Amino acid sequence: MTYKRLNKDDAVMLLVDHQTGLISLVQDFSPNEFKNNVLALADVAKFFKLPTILTTSFESGPNGPLVPELKELFPDAPYIPRPGQINAWDNEDFVKAVKATGRKQIIIAGVVTDVCVAFPTLCALDEGFDVFVVTDASGTFNETVQQAAWARMTAAGAQLVNWFAVACELQVDWRNDMEGLANLLSTRIPNYRNLMNSYSAFTAK
Amino acid sequence: MTYKRLNKDDAVMLLVDHQTGLISLVQDFSPNEFKNNVLALADVAKFFKLPTILTTSFESGPNGPLVPELKELFPDAPYIPRPGQINAWDNEDFVKAVKATGRKQIIIAGVVTDVCVAFPTLCALDEGFDVFVVTDASGTFNETVQQAAWARMTAAGAQLVNWFAVACELQVDWRNDMEGLANLLSTRIPNYRNLMNSYSAFTAK
Amino acid sequence: MTYKRLNKDDAVMLLVDHQTGLISLVQDFSPNEFKNNVLALADVAKFFKLPTILTTSFESGPNGPLVPELKELFPDAPYIPRPGQINAWDNEDFVKAVKATGRKQIIIAGVVTDVCVAFPTLCALDEGFDVFVVTDASGTFNETVQQAAWARMTAAGAQLVNWFAVACELQVDWRNDMEGLANLLSTRIPNYRNLMNSYSAFTAK
Amino acid sequence: MTYKRLNKDDAVMLLVDHQTGLISLVQDFSPNEFKNNVLALADVAKFFKLPTILTTSFESGPNGPLVPELKELFPDAPYIPRPGQINAWDNEDFVKAVKATGRKQIIIAGVVTDVCVAFPTLCALDEGFDVFVVTDASGTFNETVQQAAWARMTAAGAQLVNWFAVACELQVDWRNDMEGLANLLSTRIPNYRNLMNSYSAFTAK
Amino acid sequence: MTYKRLNKDDAVMLLVDHQTGLISLVQDFSPNEFKNNVLALADVAKFFKLPTILTTSFESGPNGPLVPELKELFPDAPYIPRPGQINAWDNEDFVKAVKATGRKQIIIAGVVTDVCVAFPTLCALDEGFDVFVVTDASGTFNETVQQAAWARMTAAGAQLVNWFAVACELQVDWRNDMEGLANLLSTRIPNYRNLMNSYSAFTAK
Amino acid sequence: MTYKRLNKDDAVMLLVDHQTGLISLVQDFSPNEFKNNVLALADVAKFFKLPTILTTSFESGPNGPLVPELKELFPDAPYIPRPGQINAWDNEDFVKAVKATGRKQIIIAGVVTDVCVAFPTLCALDEGFDVFVVTDASGTFNETVQQAAWARMTAAGAQLVNWFAVACELQVDWRNDMEGLANLLSTRIPNYRNLMNSYSAFTAK
Amino acid sequence: MTYKRLNKDDAVMLLVDHQTGLISLVQDFSPNEFKNNVLALADVAKFFKLPTILTTSFESGPNGPLVPELKELFPDAPYIPRPGQINAWDNEDFVKAVKATGRKQIIIAGVVTDVCVAFPTLCALDEGFDVFVVTDASGTFNETVQQAAWARMTAAGAQLVNWFAVACELQVDWRNDMEGLANLLSTRIPNYRNLMNSYSAFTAK
Amino acid sequence: MTYKRLNKDDAVMLLVDHQTGLISLVQDFSPNEFKNNVLALADVAKFFKLPTILTTSFESGPNGPLVPELKELFPDAPYIPRPGQINAWDNEDFVKAVKATGRKQIIIAGVVTDVCVAFPTLCALDEGFDVFVVTDASGTFNETVQQAAWARMTAAGAQLVNWFAVACELQVDWRNDMEGLANLLSTRIPNYRNLMNSYSAFTAK
Repeated sequence: MTYKRLNKDDAVMLLVDHQTGLISLVQDFSPNEFKNNVLALADVAKFFKLPTILTTSFESGPNGPLVPELKELFPDAPYIPRPGQINAWDNEDFVKAVKATGRKQIIIAGVVTDVCVAFPTLCALDEGFDVFVVTDASGTFNETVQQAAWARMTAAGAQLVNWFAVACELQVDWRNDMEGLANLLSTRIPNYRNLMNSYSAFTAK
Repeated sequence: MTYKRLNKDDAVMLLVDHQTGLISLVQDFSPNEFKNNVLALADVAKFFKLPTILTTSFESGPNGPLVPELKELFPDAPYIPRPGQINAWDNEDFVKAVKATGRKQIIIAGVVTDVCVAFPTLCALDEGFDVFVVTDASGTFNETVQQAAWARMTAAGAQLVNWFAVACELQVDWRNDMEGLANLLSTRIPNYRNLMNSYSAFTAK
Repeated sequence: MTYKRLNKDDAVMLLVDHQTGLISLVQDFSPNEFKNNVLALADVAKFFKLPTILTTSFESGPNGPLVPELKELFPDAPYIPRPGQINAWDNEDFVKAVKATGRKQIIIAGVVTDVCVAFPTLCALDEGFDVFVVTDASGTFNETVQQAAWARMTAAGAQLVNWFAVACELQVDWRNDMEGLANLLSTRIPNYRNLMNSYSAFTAK
Repeated sequence: MTYKRLNKDDAVMLLVDHQTGLISLVQDFSPNEFKNNVLALADVAKFFKLPTILTTSFESGPNGPLVPELKELFPDAPYIPRPGQINAWDNEDFVKAVKATGRKQIIIAGVVTDVCVAFPTLCALDEGFDVFVVTDASGTFNETVQQAAWARMTAAGAQLVNWFAVACELQVDWRNDMEGLANLLSTRIPNYRNLMNSYSAFTAK
Repeated sequence: MTYKRLNKDDAVMLLVDHQTGLISLVQDFSPNEFKNNVLALADVAKFFKLPTILTTSFESGPNGPLVPELKELFPDAPYIPRPGQINAWDNEDFVKAVKATGRKQIIIAGVVTDVCVAFPTLCALDEGFDVFVVTDASGTFNETVQQAAWARMTAAGAQLVNWFAVACELQVDWRNDMEGLANLLSTRIPNYRNLMNSYSAFTAK
Repeated sequence: MTYKRLNKDDAVMLLVDHQTGLISLVQDFSPNEFKNNVLALADVAKFFKLPTILTTSFESGPNGPLVPELKELFPDAPYIPRPGQINAWDNEDFVKAVKATGRKQIIIAGVVTDVCVAFPTLCALDEGFDVFVVTDASGTFNETVQQAAWARMTAAGAQLVNWFAVACELQVDWRNDMEGLANLLSTRIPNYRNLMNSYSAFTAK
Repeated sequence: MTYKRLNKDDAVMLLVDHQTGLISLVQDFSPNEFKNNVLALADVAKFFKLPTILTTSFESGPNGPLVPELKELFPDAPYIPRPGQINAWDNEDFVKAVKATGRKQIIIAGVVTDVCVAFPTLCALDEGFDVFVVTDASGTFNETVQQAAWARMTAAGAQLVNWFAVACELQVDWRNDMEGLANLLSTRIPNYRNLMNSYSAFTAK
Repeated sequence: MTYKRLNKDDAVMLLVDHQTGLISLVQDFSPNEFKNNVLALADVAKFFKLPTILTTSFESGPNGPLVPELKELFPDAPYIPRPGQINAWDNEDFVKAVKATGRKQIIIAGVVTDVCVAFPTLCALDEGFDVFVVTDASGTFNETVQQAAWARMTAAGAQLVNWFAVACELQVDWRNDMEGLANLLSTRIPNYRNLMNSYSAFTAK
């Protein structure tokens, strides 16, 4: 067993098919939870300056455009609207963009988990990448499908993570940027914000 | 049976004890859901210019301060930090503030449902007010307690509602302010925002 | 207590806002369950030749068009696309259409339960109609909202039903049209279809 | 509607059949939750010096003895081991003990909800008492039975409450004994204890 | 409020449509739970010698025959295979059989809850009977339908009960037949059987 | 790790024991969900022209006949009614039929998961086939059994998938037959159909 | 991957600590489900004449005696009441009894899963036995503990099964004793019994 | 497969970040369950005299102080308040304290599971320790995150356990200290306490 530890200098973030139409298919998270998790993960990519790659599937059709918040957060990121490939890894531009980063740790999330996340995850593992699947920023039709997709990816060697664990594993030490991390957590974890507000109020006395 | 219909000219909004410490006791909603619902209800009060009254219980102690977002949204609202009364209706200033609005329809939400919401609800019903309990912006320890509190208030004549129904019942007609309502829904209902974004994208073609 | 029994000669069916966009907001039923229930209820209306009234809210906007299956099933039914009224009962044409049927029993279903179903239900009860809310053909954001809406309508005197109970209460006696009812159930209740198929196989021996 | 408000000078606490054997039948609460709730309710009775009456059913048989903690907390309370009556209200000594308190508000909890709580509740309501059923200190076989029993008692006029609401309604004002109430809550609500400990730590700075 | 208490000299048991085919539609209880509950209720009827009436719907078709255990338990009970009426109360023989008992308290269970139980319940209430719906011996398609059916019957004045509560309310006092009741509970409540076996083992020492 | 990717030229579909009687045992999916999933998987086999093999267990007995829809969809498929073997892999004709396809990727679904799916899966893995278990088109008694069966098959090397992932993995690229795939998804995923209908309506403007 | 297939000539059944007291700790199954599953597994052992070994832990103390049904079913089976060893594999007599059977496939179930089942399972795997854990005849405190215990045993190489899968894997072919197996299933699977009864009724015509 | 069995002479207990603020983030256990589990695990460490190491993260900030009960139970244990490292294993003093015990079996629990438990677990496995993760004394944001974290640690070779299994595996034989273990179980498992009390009562006769 070798612990493959996330490292902000070796990780690339892949956000796959978070499109306005496809997200309406997600039922294994409540819409509010899912939106919060996806934006939190995007915040993490931004905060740690991870190279980030966006891709969509048929955004001119019913699947709809990428959710605007992601486009706005990463205006300069490689953005690959796929003309037809379901598996993003089948799109040459996408794979080139990934490889151009020179990084070997892939952090991936998307909609739907069993297809848009699972397929490129399995391909990337096959090519020797370490893959970290962000379970709570990836959604699908129901919990049965979610569980099957998780099992398939785990069996293939993917590591299952959540956005908060990704943030903490990349941060390593609060002292690397205490205010920055606190701000990120406060925005996306209401009870952490509450703790901070209680703390401020109490220590101000 | 007479349908007591919410009316923006006869309704007053009571937000009871949404404090940073107390909210950490809430377990019948996920923290993200709860925060979204509470802020959505506050948006509704703001959007319809409802007189709004804020109150807290022991905010200098472990219960913590009012969540700052509510304070900021209603800087000029009556704000009654209760020195000890558990039931806000036992506080004269609070009841005076309610009665000063001259309104007979009370919309109420708070933490925790079975106490901070239920007690003033029962008192207000007793005095002849119509009371609309916003179930999804009121939280408590677990679902068993939630269900018992709902049953008690229903039996006493309270109407159970949710923030979205409150918004729609007050709005009456989309044409009263289409953009305003759409904006509110887009902010607080991710799947509605998705619908709007898909719509914009498709009709732009 | 007087049992107000559904009667196919005194009932009218109201299908409110089953639109392609709005349905994507429904999370208290799985999409498959919900579609099946809505179409089953439509089958019931058709089978018993109930006067049926269709209405939509802003179908030219993000809410989307009525689901095509309903339009096709009831090509000659009154169809009232509301220009802005959220509560269908606030639309004169809609209420006129209901009253034109001369019937006093309203069977209603729609999206979302807490608004599009609850508001006209409360108004109709107020005017003396008997209202039967078809719970499993009405959907909303989550189960908390569902429960609150049910409680509000029950307290006002609505009767909660499901599509199967509506079918059976209207049918009264299997012998009124055995094949017709069996066909309807077989289409919409997979396990009933299984029973029928087993029966056919076994008795054919 | 008249709000019947709990009042520590008019309330009596009935603890029915919390026996070591019977409690093993409870499955609508986890054992830890249930134990905590029952002891919390007992703490409330003690704290407000409510007259408290204990009763058991066949404690010499498989139902087992009263849980020792309750016996120890109320060494001088009337204690009525019933020789055979299932409904405690059918036991003359029990009813006499209740009436001897001269109080008209009954707070009741027990095992199992649908029998040991429901039967005396229905009888007491019949005789004009106000009855407050402590839902979370009453347990039974499963949630279906729980819900049916709640519905039956609610329909008969009982008020459903939980131990925390009982405590707060009796306390009226924190200032009546701030330390006492805080101590009670700290013992039985872990997250409240956490709030208090955080508060102490922060304000000590 | 008058407590209508079950009384073994005034109660009649109606078992409606517990047929081998229809039971396969039940999904709000696990098959084992449901079978146990139905047989337990039948045991109760037998134990208290309640007049019991059996009825089936189309037993020659896919609905299948009455489950054999019930037929065997009540060989001499009125048995009304209905030729077509969905609502058993629409069948003259059935109503005659009920009225022939001279009893005013109806205990009813059946499959499915929302139709076979709800319809005769509503009719019987309408005619002045007291009706006790045995929730855990009545099954239907899913929990949503269950909840709606319960709400409809409760609103009409039915009392929701469970088989164990029925047994205990009829028994009144353990001493009326201690061994008989213990035997019944031991057969149908595994954890009660365990208590009895532990008790026997320990007291034998 | 080598990603064994589904390939429409190397895959064979096995549909095991989807019989009218056996399906009534399934309780880990609602009947509507399950029917939809099974027919969706059959559509997939048809759409990709996968060699498909049907088998049943004792169809002349209580297990009942194959559901007619499957028989109709695959009139020319090998159809092996097993005379007694529980594990389809123990039936020579069945294994011959599989091997006659010359394919090495088995896609399998059936009733019940822990037996009719798990046993041939374990045998086929043992003989070197790649096996893809379609979790949402395979049903069993309850979720505990489902989870155990999944764990057993996963540990043996089976890949857990769902019908939608199978469709997408076989399709590879939307452009291979955009209309065909869209039609399949529209029929079996109500929310996807809604997206398509909204899209058509909006872009028609 | 080698499929280790259960074989009635190489399997031994271990039933560990199904005692009247310990069973009252089980909360991951309802009491009825659990009882049915345990007795079904015992029926399987009996039906296939598997050597069966019974053991208990401190049966003279609060853990209570073995449930009498098991003792009665296996009057001649080795019965090892352990004087103190928590792990049955630490008891020499127990291990000797297992090894005396000369069998290498262990089928095991017990109470509680995480201790009484997991410990001997891990030891037996360590000694080279194949171990089949019967998940639905093994119970524990809650589902979290259940899941952790399953994961631990799976990781160590145990196969997770359920009683029905065990029966079917041992039976191999219905024709080995059709009536015997049908009888066993009919007794323990109510919906299978229903199928059989419907079948008999229909084919008798 | 080699069974790595917990051994009280080779195990060390790590309790990570059970702080008053952080615990308010836990939502995969009810607060009462979680508190009970954490204190039970601490009791186990104490009872078996395991070397125990406490650590906290930023206890002077919003995360809050260590829960006082743990501090009191282990007044002399190494206590490492980490100045910034998120992963306790990144703190030299912490790792030194672990290694100073000379033990190779790590029992670990903490808040939150996916970070404070998972990170040091992965590091310790990497260095060759055997790691036993106490799932029920480790809490996090929700069950999705819990499941992902469990899967990640299991895949890396950690053994998932629960506090009760830890106690039993360390105890080996009740006779090593029967009274001590019984006392521990009685304090933390209410139903076990009930069994003991019933036993005492019955055998006293």
